Amino acid sequence: MEPTQPKLNNLSSACLEISMPMEYHKVVRPPPRSTLEKLKNRFKETFFPDDPLRQFKGQSLKRKWILGAQYLFPVLQWGPNYSLNLFKSDIVSGLTIASLAIPQGISYAKLASLPPIIGLYSSFVPPLVYSLLGSSRDLAVGPVSIASLLLGSMLRQEVSPTKEPLLYVQLAFTSTLFAGLVQASLGILRLGFIIDFLSKATLIGFMAGAAIIVSLQQLKSLLGIIHFTKQTGVVPVLSSIFHTTNEWSWQTIVMGFCFLLLLLGARHVSLKKPKLFWVSAGAPLASVILSTLLVFAFKAQNHGISIIGKLQEGLNPPSWNMLTFHGSHLGLVMKTGLITGIISLTEGIAVGRTFAALRNYQVDGNKEMIAMGLMNMVGSCTSCYITTGAFSRSAVNYNAGAKTAVSNIVMAVTVMVTLLFLMPLFHYTPNVVLGAIIITAVIGLIDIPAAFLIWKIDKFDFLVLICAFLGVIFISVQEGLSIAVGMSVFKVLLQITRPRTVMLGNIPGTDIYRNLHHYKEARRVPGLLILSIEAPINFANSTYLNERISRWIEEYEAEDQGDEKHSDLQFVILDLTAVSAIDTSGVSLIKDLKKAMMKRGLELVLVNPVGEVMEKLQRGNQAQDIMPEDYLYLTVGEAVASLSSMIKGKALIHV
Amino acid sequence: MEPTQPKLNNLSSACLEISMPMEYHKVVRPPPRSTLEKLKNRFKETFFPDDPLRQFKGQSLKRKWILGAQYLFPVLQWGPNYSLNLFKSDIVSGLTIASLAIPQGISYAKLASLPPIIGLYSSFVPPLVYSLLGSSRDLAVGPVSIASLLLGSMLRQEVSPTKEPLLYVQLAFTSTLFAGLVQASLGILRLGFIIDFLSKATLIGFMAGAAIIVSLQQLKSLLGIIHFTKQTGVVPVLSSIFHTTNEWSWQTIVMGFCFLLLLLGARHVSLKKPKLFWVSAGAPLASVILSTLLVFAFKAQNHGISIIGKLQEGLNPPSWNMLTFHGSHLGLVMKTGLITGIISLTEGIAVGRTFAALRNYQVDGNKEMIAMGLMNMVGSCTSCYITTGAFSRSAVNYNAGAKTAVSNIVMAVTVMVTLLFLMPLFHYTPNVVLGAIIITAVIGLIDIPAAFLIWKIDKFDFLVLICAFLGVIFISVQEGLSIAVGMSVFKVLLQITRPRTVMLGNIPGTDIYRNLHHYKEARRVPGLLILSIEAPINFANSTYLNERISRWIEEYEAEDQGDEKHSDLQFVILDLTAVSAIDTSGVSLIKDLKKAMMKRGLELVLVNPVGEVMEKLQRGNQAQDIMPEDYLYLTVGEAVASLSSMIKGKALIHV
Repeated sequence: MEPTQPKLNNLSSACLEISMPMEYHKVVRPPPRSTLEKLKNRFKETFFPDDPLRQFKGQSLKRKWILGAQYLFPVLQWGPNYSLNLFKSDIVSGLTIASLAIPQGISYAKLASLPPIIGLYSSFVPPLVYSLLGSSRDLAVGPVSIASLLLGSMLRQEVSPTKEPLLYVQLAFTSTLFAGLVQASLGILRLGFIIDFLSKATLIGFMAGAAIIVSLQQLKSLLGIIHFTKQTGVVPVLSSIFHTTNEWSWQTIVMGFCFLLLLLGARHVSLKKPKLFWVSAGAPLASVILSTLLVFAFKAQNHGISIIGKLQEGLNPPSWNMLTFHGSHLGLVMKTGLITGIISLTEGIAVGRTFAALRNYQVDGNKEMIAMGLMNMVGSCTSCYITTGAFSRSAVNYNAGAKTAVSNIVMAVTVMVTLLFLMPLFHYTPNVVLGAIIITAVIGLIDIPAAFLIWKIDKFDFLVLICAFLGVIFISVQEGLSIAVGMSVFKVLLQITRPRTVMLGNIPGTDIYRNLHHYKEARRVPGLLILSIEAPINFANSTYLNERISRWIEEYEAEDQGDEKHSDLQFVILDLTAVSAIDTSGVSLIKDLKKAMMKRGLELVLVNPVGEVMEKLQRGNQAQDIMPEDYLYLTVGEAVASLSSMIKGKALIHV
Repeated sequence: MEPTQPKLNNLSSACLEISMPMEYHKVVRPPPRSTLEKLKNRFKETFFPDDPLRQFKGQSLKRKWILGAQYLFPVLQWGPNYSLNLFKSDIVSGLTIASLAIPQGISYAKLASLPPIIGLYSSFVPPLVYSLLGSSRDLAVGPVSIASLLLGSMLRQEVSPTKEPLLYVQLAFTSTLFAGLVQASLGILRLGFIIDFLSKATLIGFMAGAAIIVSLQQLKSLLGIIHFTKQTGVVPVLSSIFHTTNEWSWQTIVMGFCFLLLLLGARHVSLKKPKLFWVSAGAPLASVILSTLLVFAFKAQNHGISIIGKLQEGLNPPSWNMLTFHGSHLGLVMKTGLITGIISLTEGIAVGRTFAALRNYQVDGNKEMIAMGLMNMVGSCTSCYITTGAFSRSAVNYNAGAKTAVSNIVMAVTVMVTLLFLMPLFHYTPNVVLGAIIITAVIGLIDIPAAFLIWKIDKFDFLVLICAFLGVIFISVQEGLSIAVGMSVFKVLLQITRPRTVMLGNIPGTDIYRNLHHYKEARRVPGLLILSIEAPINFANSTYLNERISRWIEEYEAEDQGDEKHSDLQFVILDLTAVSAIDTSGVSLIKDLKKAMMKRGLELVLVNPVGEVMEKLQRGNQAQDIMPEDYLYLTVGEAVASLSSMIKGKALIHV
């Protein structure tokens, strides 16, 4: 096998030879690093991908202290530069979201089967805490529909809010504390990536399902039903509605649907013309005032319309003495805390990121988790239940021109004034209007265009979405969610277990090699089978890859044998460019392949193993049994050029 | 921006331009396929990667029937060509493994706390079934140590084999039935890849741990202890041994250690000279005969040496009437069946594959699972407990020159003769010799060189190994295994959640682009940031990738600003070659990146999205917002050539 000058009818290969007549580029071993260094690097990439300490580098000690304090309390970043102009914007937006927060707070507390006043308490303390710790400028904090629904439906499984109201409230506060603990620990341990496992498809399906569940629950108020089921599934709710037709009250129904139309109309106006955001922002408060006046004027409470009734006055009473950790319900509150904590975190962070992207600033996920966790822990001691950043209110906040977290403070102060002086005004507010407000708020959670886009892009994601949706409405909120998450993870594991291998061919006139099934103009190179493996090689797929590669070879040889007796296949080239990692099973696979090919009279050629893979192959390469130097190339093009010349050389000798 | 001829000091790029003066290669959309076609293809690759029906293609109907029958009963493949010569080889190997199977069968049954005779029953029926259905020529089937240990330790958790012997045996048979059902269903449903999740590292750690547990259990026989603990953990066993020193019998200890030395010596000889395989193969039977004669001659049973005692004569009695499915132990037998079934399947298939690779034939994993499943289902009805292909016996079988599964039949017939006529001979066999036989057999399961190689190649795999090992010896066999599998899966998920992104640079004199940290000679291209993403993009990593890519850009700009005021970064090139799949979150990521870069005044350029990724990006590419045609290239080289000329063009205009 003398080193003959290979002659290929291939211009660019010929070109390569001009630049390097005889020699090809070597695959080198990556620069050595100690195990400790690698571990450190891996640890950093896993837990500190955003490199939060970057800004501290090369600063003076004093500056480091200031930066550290600013890191912990973002208020110190924007506080010193706060101006009257900013305050003007914030006061407008703060008052706007307060007008939304007061009726929503009362409504969502009822959704969680809690006394309405707790909804207002929860719109007072948590926004104040968040304005000190949170890094989003647009997030409007308070109770939200999904978390309220979840909290209520989970606690009601064990405790009745009507029979044991005190215990129920105690469990709600304790769950809120656990939710806060979960959120803060995820942030402190930098495990924020756990919420990433709730994929977009899962969330869209889940939200749509939850919106339907929440809306169905409101039929109780909207139809004026008194004896309503405690379950949340679609089937029991519908059957409960049709078994209580005798309780339906026409006055309530008329009032409810009028206000529902009004609110939906206002929402439609704001959707069409974003400048008129205040129409939908103000509509709930307007509806509450109007309906309260109507009830008061016509004494409608005596005509079958149920009203909120007497509400306590005064600010949040302390509630740390109400936290209960003993006894039979501890498991329930921990589970409720975990699930509501993660769901409300997901919502809050997603909302924060959405608006941060619109205004081009960064929201630090882990920091936000700590902020929300502390906010809920403080909340649980001051008579608040679980809160987070709400999408609808934050959108209003953003549109109303909020500049900083001061808008949250303005909202909290407005709620405080309400709590201190205005509570008697809500005495005659009819429950039916609260139901209409909730329905209008949650209808926005059903995102059909997004679901359609998912259907268009990825059918499996759509299946996950549908399962989340059906699971939530037919089984239960938490199980629907678990099914969807399980399916998403299963898909990822399946991708790992069955990685794609594709056969590459040369695109004529170049030294580019691409998938033969994708690029129809690509051509096979005689005598060579070029395969690309498109996943990390590990224990879960090495058996499969072994079988699949031997099938590729058999198929190739079978096709070849069509015209000749013997297949002319001599080399199998494995392009490892897309193999980002390998483990011991993967190294064994390469060894096994090498042996199996030797038995068939073939040679295995490896192309471009990347850093870690190269390193591990070399460490497993005792006695040069995996990678002899001459069968290792940097690019497919160079491998083909070199091997083709060998094949020709052999052919010449045989002739 | 006129189309100037880009001038790079780069010969091969220049070459590319000779072949295509102005135009670059387009990334095309892969040929359209319907969703159904894709689903079919995905299904096939997931469940039928070996394409079992390949051989049926284009055959006549009669031939198809024959092939089908041969597929179900591999005996029909080799049976018709069976010759006297083959039989001569098979009879020698069959007798050799029988001499090993008889003492091992008795010993392993004792390990599972079952009557010794059941070990012999299990060496009779299952080998016969396997010889009809199995596709391995070398596998020697029968009871094995690990599965016996697992079965015993799991069943003893609920039922005592001494207090309720009948119930215990019933549960053992029922567990065997469930194990068979699990195995056969995995094969029929083609879910064989589930056993791949037991990685090599897990298995090595697990086997070593199990070997130690099994050996410690044998100290009961070896020291002559009567009151021994029922637990398997290292701590309770050792404390039990040192709390019963008064029961130790010196006669037993002397006899035990003499035979242990003899057996280990024989093993050593065979390991050194594989030609002398019969030394270790015959040693157990020789030890049994010798020790039985010694006991008989010296009436040693009266001097503190415990003996097997009376054994029943006759063939396997039917046991289907002993299967119990009702009542409180159903959960236990199902769990035991599941775990022992999967573990023994893993062992059997691994052994089958090892010897098939040595002799260069294929073992069909799913078919083997069905064969082993049926073998255990039949076994559970004929007084057998769980069996599989044993490594030690298969190695002896291979070395003794077995040619077909007939050696299993020879072994079964020998066991049958033993069962019918030779059982009284085992009356005086001392238990201590059985203990020594087990220890010698399991010591081979501790594979220190393999563990060392894993340490060398992959530190995390070694950690998994150690956890499996420590978990098995300190917690429990099944929990040690679960921990190790959990860790392996966690590692894979972590790789997905934190995929590597690397910065590419040009290797001077070529148009090859490689990781800057790996190839020190690679150089950055001014004005361009070239990143390669090395994993599928999905919900679990899109947030991370977003953060990580923006950090790359910030770092790049920060370094650039060292010498100039403004960074000259204009384009960010994402090389998607290694991105084998994408989902809706991934498509959103690309959209978000595009938007974020526009805000920074940068352009996002995509290179070489492969088939599925290209398709999904295009489907998500409403209004050309992700991939305008001009920012999509087939190779990094072409992208750089084209963009560099643009940058130069701009610079000229500015000058």
